[in-house]
Amino acid sequence: MEERFDDIAEILIEMFESGDSSKIGSVIKGMRAPDIADVLSVLPEEVWIFVFRELDTETASGVLSIVDEGVAREILEDLRADEIVPLVEIMASDDATDIINLLPDEKVPSVLQRISREDYEDVSELLKFDRETAGGLMARELLTVNGGMKISDVIAVIRSEAENIENIQNIYVVDSAGLLLGSIPVINLLVVDSDKRADEIMEKGILTVTVDTDQEEVAAIFSKYDLYALPVVDETGRLEGRITADDIMDVIEEEANEDITMMAGTGEEEFWERSSFRLSRARLPWLLTGLLGGVASAFVMNSFKASLESVLTLSFFVPVITAMAGNAGIQSSAIVVRELAVGGISFGQTSSKLVRELKVSLINGSILASILMAIILLWQGDFKLGVLLGLCMFFIICWATVMGAMIPLLLKRGNIDPALATGPFITTSNDILGILIYLGMATLFIDWLR
Amino acid sequence: MEERFDDIAEILIEMFESGDSSKIGSVIKGMRAPDIADVLSVLPEEVWIFVFRELDTETASGVLSIVDEGVAREILEDLRADEIVPLVEIMASDDATDIINLLPDEKVPSVLQRISREDYEDVSELLKFDRETAGGLMARELLTVNGGMKISDVIAVIRSEAENIENIQNIYVVDSAGLLLGSIPVINLLVVDSDKRADEIMEKGILTVTVDTDQEEVAAIFSKYDLYALPVVDETGRLEGRITADDIMDVIEEEANEDITMMAGTGEEEFWERSSFRLSRARLPWLLTGLLGGVASAFVMNSFKASLESVLTLSFFVPVITAMAGNAGIQSSAIVVRELAVGGISFGQTSSKLVRELKVSLINGSILASILMAIILLWQGDFKLGVLLGLCMFFIICWATVMGAMIPLLLKRGNIDPALATGPFITTSNDILGILIYLGMATLFIDWLR
Repeated sequence: MEERFDDIAEILIEMFESGDSSKIGSVIKGMRAPDIADVLSVLPEEVWIFVFRELDTETASGVLSIVDEGVAREILEDLRADEIVPLVEIMASDDATDIINLLPDEKVPSVLQRISREDYEDVSELLKFDRETAGGLMARELLTVNGGMKISDVIAVIRSEAENIENIQNIYVVDSAGLLLGSIPVINLLVVDSDKRADEIMEKGILTVTVDTDQEEVAAIFSKYDLYALPVVDETGRLEGRITADDIMDVIEEEANEDITMMAGTGEEEFWERSSFRLSRARLPWLLTGLLGGVASAFVMNSFKASLESVLTLSFFVPVITAMAGNAGIQSSAIVVRELAVGGISFGQTSSKLVRELKVSLINGSILASILMAIILLWQGDFKLGVLLGLCMFFIICWATVMGAMIPLLLKRGNIDPALATGPFITTSNDILGILIYLGMATLFIDWLR
Repeated sequence: MEERFDDIAEILIEMFESGDSSKIGSVIKGMRAPDIADVLSVLPEEVWIFVFRELDTETASGVLSIVDEGVAREILEDLRADEIVPLVEIMASDDATDIINLLPDEKVPSVLQRISREDYEDVSELLKFDRETAGGLMARELLTVNGGMKISDVIAVIRSEAENIENIQNIYVVDSAGLLLGSIPVINLLVVDSDKRADEIMEKGILTVTVDTDQEEVAAIFSKYDLYALPVVDETGRLEGRITADDIMDVIEEEANEDITMMAGTGEEEFWERSSFRLSRARLPWLLTGLLGGVASAFVMNSFKASLESVLTLSFFVPVITAMAGNAGIQSSAIVVRELAVGGISFGQTSSKLVRELKVSLINGSILASILMAIILLWQGDFKLGVLLGLCMFFIICWATVMGAMIPLLLKRGNIDPALATGPFITTSNDILGILIYLGMATLFIDWLR
């Protein structure tokens, strides 16, 4: 399938080069919006708008709400406000809001002025919320009925409104003040007696989130309780919108990408940014931290110059010390960061986590220290150096492993994203500390070693 | 909420210690199965079965299909076959199959013998499939109707069967041979004329996967096309089962966890394993690779002993070289691994990816090389050493970045999990290679440097 998209991309590039857009329609005919979005992201930037302008309104609207952020920004840059309006108007309110957020600032007022009053109200309501909260994820469109309504009337409501709302799995039941009472799975409407009232057949005590719930928590709730849709309420319990599973799949992926890019010391823009300069800027901070950490290591080694001069062999084992401190720290920190992300560590578990890490590091530290000692004995025939390096290795693995678990837990308590700790901070500080401990111990025992 | 679970856990531990299970019911009354599963995973191992035995069949069945793999295994170990049977019988077929997979080998036949014929057939069908394929994910339960059936009859079918199937969003339409023709969203049944035939109102050309599709690809399809359910067919197009969005949220998380644990050089068991020995075993392979890599670095340094003896300062900069080679390699490899995982790189894009990485590394390499050069000039006042290290840094960053992107792409082509490349392999090989290049160049110019 991907191969086919490459072929289509090639044909479209040829059309762009010959300047003939008349046959674009026949090439992409029958393709689904997500597939067209994929083809666009393979195409060079200058071809995007050339292809996009040939799509019918419905397809164009679908493509725009699905395509990579970088592509969408560029297309919106090229479109006039009056071309954008019909595309936004047929989107669900959450997608429409995302698009308004991507618009170049100067186009926002002219687009908002032209869209229908209802859409304007939904979008301006949603624009108030932080993008990474339940309010920022939810769509305003949903089917609500009053608790006293008969099922036959509920079905009549559905007949008149269902067309405007996608993916309806539940009807929400509210009281006269708009407070959420419960929900009815659509399929139950087919099964129950149509004379019953909505509040008689609704499921009560359903899960909700408030508009300001963080998207990571929303995703954890969806995945824990196997949900397809989750109603969002304000602080008084009034129904404000609903979040659907398709949005959550994106969030789970996004949060995983965030953890991984932070671990790797770069940013999420990696997944859509095309400019090498902006990508280099995303990666540079960690590389710089690493460089300065490396220079700090050089300072540390310089301060132990006398020991290194008297036993040059000591320097040979600096890389093994830094590599192991880094590895052990990354292992424990990555796991803790991920467990925190999926909501798996309650405060009560913190100490048992640390005990677990200590145990694991004691086992691994002993094994690796023994192996290193044996290698040095066999290679250098130097028992004393073997003992020194073995002890250092043991200590450093225990230290790095426990710190690797502790720092993200502390950051989480301080409400800082724990993933920050995994990459830059742990690796660099473990490097420096490892060298310091190793050469410090070597210097203390230098007369014995020599 | 998590805090509350800790309190409940404490109360349950007290009950366990006093040996009084009679009040467990009142403590966990009204709790949802996923919440009980959470409480279990906070409890010490010996308390699990004590609490589990007090649950009613429906709750127990729900908890068992949701709880961490490690907890489920332990509980199944303690239960008798005749206790397991009723729990399995009320599960959906996909969950039931997962439980059979977790059973201790000696219990499998006695459980399979006792479950109902229908469940037995579903489970033995599903047991044939690899757990990480569409066949391993799907449930056999679904609502199918014949294309010629009138909508009023379809609704009658739903009335008689709906109770046994969870989360029905679509009715699947098949022909007399069981070939999938299309699907009808449940809500449409409320809207259309009940005299119409199923094949007149069904959506045609719906997306399907075959039983052997890899779960990573299934997840990519769900997330790309915003699906809630996806029918699974055999190679002839016969409908075999359906996968629902809740399973996919787990898959997306699982795949992300897999990428992250591989990057960190450990295994997925990190998320449920409780034994320190088994955790240490999961982490040891990478730590060993790192240790041997470190020893190899020591050998490399030893072979450049003469140069290091004549210019000791050279050794001070070994850590900065290894740190930067590692960092640059992790950045590009993590991104490529992740893009491959979410299905973002088609073969046609491979070369443009590599060009991008080369460009980024040229920019970052120049900047970092210049900074390192300046620092060495200011600190050591040694112009020659500055030039040498600057050149090495530039070359190593370019090399590590491009290799970091290339190796996962090559592994993917060879059908090996690209995430394998990110952690152990890239870091260790970059360390050794970095030192080799650095000390090699230094030795070449040692007379000039001295």
